[in-house]
Amino acid sequence: MPVCSPIAILDSGLGGLTVAGAIRAALPQENILYFGDTARVPYGAKTAATVSKFVRQIIDYLRPQEPKHVVIACNTATALALDDARKSFPGLSISGVIEPGAKAAVAAAGKKPSPLIGVIATEATVRSKAYEVAIGRRRTLARMVCRPTPLIVPLVEEGRGGDDPVVQLALKQYLLPMYQEGMDVLVLGCTHYPVYKDLIGRMLGPKVPVIDSADQCAQDVRRRLVDSSLLRTADAVAGTLRCYVTDDPPRFARLAQRFFGFPVPKPTWVSIEDLHDPSAGAPVQVRIHAPAAAVMRSAV
Amino acid sequence: MPVCSPIAILDSGLGGLTVAGAIRAALPQENILYFGDTARVPYGAKTAATVSKFVRQIIDYLRPQEPKHVVIACNTATALALDDARKSFPGLSISGVIEPGAKAAVAAAGKKPSPLIGVIATEATVRSKAYEVAIGRRRTLARMVCRPTPLIVPLVEEGRGGDDPVVQLALKQYLLPMYQEGMDVLVLGCTHYPVYKDLIGRMLGPKVPVIDSADQCAQDVRRRLVDSSLLRTADAVAGTLRCYVTDDPPRFARLAQRFFGFPVPKPTWVSIEDLHDPSAGAPVQVRIHAPAAAVMRSAV
Repeated sequence: MPVCSPIAILDSGLGGLTVAGAIRAALPQENILYFGDTARVPYGAKTAATVSKFVRQIIDYLRPQEPKHVVIACNTATALALDDARKSFPGLSISGVIEPGAKAAVAAAGKKPSPLIGVIATEATVRSKAYEVAIGRRRTLARMVCRPTPLIVPLVEEGRGGDDPVVQLALKQYLLPMYQEGMDVLVLGCTHYPVYKDLIGRMLGPKVPVIDSADQCAQDVRRRLVDSSLLRTADAVAGTLRCYVTDDPPRFARLAQRFFGFPVPKPTWVSIEDLHDPSAGAPVQVRIHAPAAAVMRSAV
Repeated sequence: MPVCSPIAILDSGLGGLTVAGAIRAALPQENILYFGDTARVPYGAKTAATVSKFVRQIIDYLRPQEPKHVVIACNTATALALDDARKSFPGLSISGVIEPGAKAAVAAAGKKPSPLIGVIATEATVRSKAYEVAIGRRRTLARMVCRPTPLIVPLVEEGRGGDDPVVQLALKQYLLPMYQEGMDVLVLGCTHYPVYKDLIGRMLGPKVPVIDSADQCAQDVRRRLVDSSLLRTADAVAGTLRCYVTDDPPRFARLAQRFFGFPVPKPTWVSIEDLHDPSAGAPVQVRIHAPAAAVMRSAV
């Protein structure tokens, strides 16, 4: 596989662009494909079976472009679908955002014998216990407090900033009990949440580090590419970015730069009817553009 | 078509159950099919093309059960997809929730020469101007103030009640400017919003009627069935209810009664791969359960 092969980054919508932006900043020479499943966003209250199917469909769609690595840039999709995706596409290198975030949280917890690590995330991510597992593997004595915070994505998507009183009240409701329990570190377990990172940092004060997994994820991708000798050399030309969405390309074009941090080219629209699940008893779409009756007649 | 044919009610998820509940209460002898597209919920920030496709797929799925009437029990889907659905299924009787709500709003506005009618709804419903059109047809001098209130659905879905301070603050932010403009009537332009109807009524006071289109929609359906001689007689046996969802039947079973108002049987899960869009160049799914190669060999 050539080093100029792209890195494929997939997400339920716009949030994964914070991860794509960190990868662009850390590895500016890499070509990136970004897929946002805006017709079926959000994933945060859906089941593992459904989210895994969506992820398989997206990877299957991007596979002909021969990505050298696939990043599931969504905590919910990582929690519910990463293992399934690795099994479904055994030849592909695939990673998520939870392991890098867990690693950074454990590092930030320092040498405290039994640190209390907090995670805020979607309902589905919390229910999956993916952070408990990932952190537990690294620090057996860590205590965890994980809280679903489903209002934060809609607050971000509505365009509310950290100065909005509804944002401040909702975050205070979510974070105060965790703070009062003596939380040592907070992980932002959803790619939308870094939009309020400054506000959350001010609320918790300097003693509680706030972990945003986007930067950690970019470093994880770099390490994986180095290990497999697929890192594009720093003197290569600047990498390209191609975006795909399943709904509303103009809205994506309007909002994307806020998450990505750099200008974003117009996305390509992909119909959900052109997405296929390679594991679903091999459904084959035969697209008949003439009426079925006419086709039957011509076959006689 | 027999009078015992079912009424099909479709929605993006749970909200349409408020409409289904009003139809059950008004027409207890009618058989009801309810379809909640929980794998792709919410529709409120998606495009007309995508929502129309989803609606065509759902009607196509329910059509073999020969519904005598179809209700699009979602304001966003009514605003974006009702006209398209009527064109796509010319033999079917289909109605939505906006016309009944608009009719009730005009009646509630009374004889004031130029009443100010407020509507709160999803982004997509507001952008569609469907309420302006429906109300403008009935009262040419009505003035309108329509506001997208995208936080209300997530607040309801998180299970927050009217006593929650975040709910109260968000509603105050949304409604106070409309109230200060001198709004005469408020339409709840989304089937989730009746959950906060009492709180909204207390905030606005008795001079501003709050219109919840579920009851109006049920009366509209009754009138349509009477007009077409398809109303089931009141002495018939109690009607049945069958529910279909595209994701997470247990969550639906857990939350449905809160919206429907009556006990709800376990829903049937429908894979989104079994939904077809009859207008999309007639895609035909050929499901090959054996590996493709084996099928080819057996055909030789």
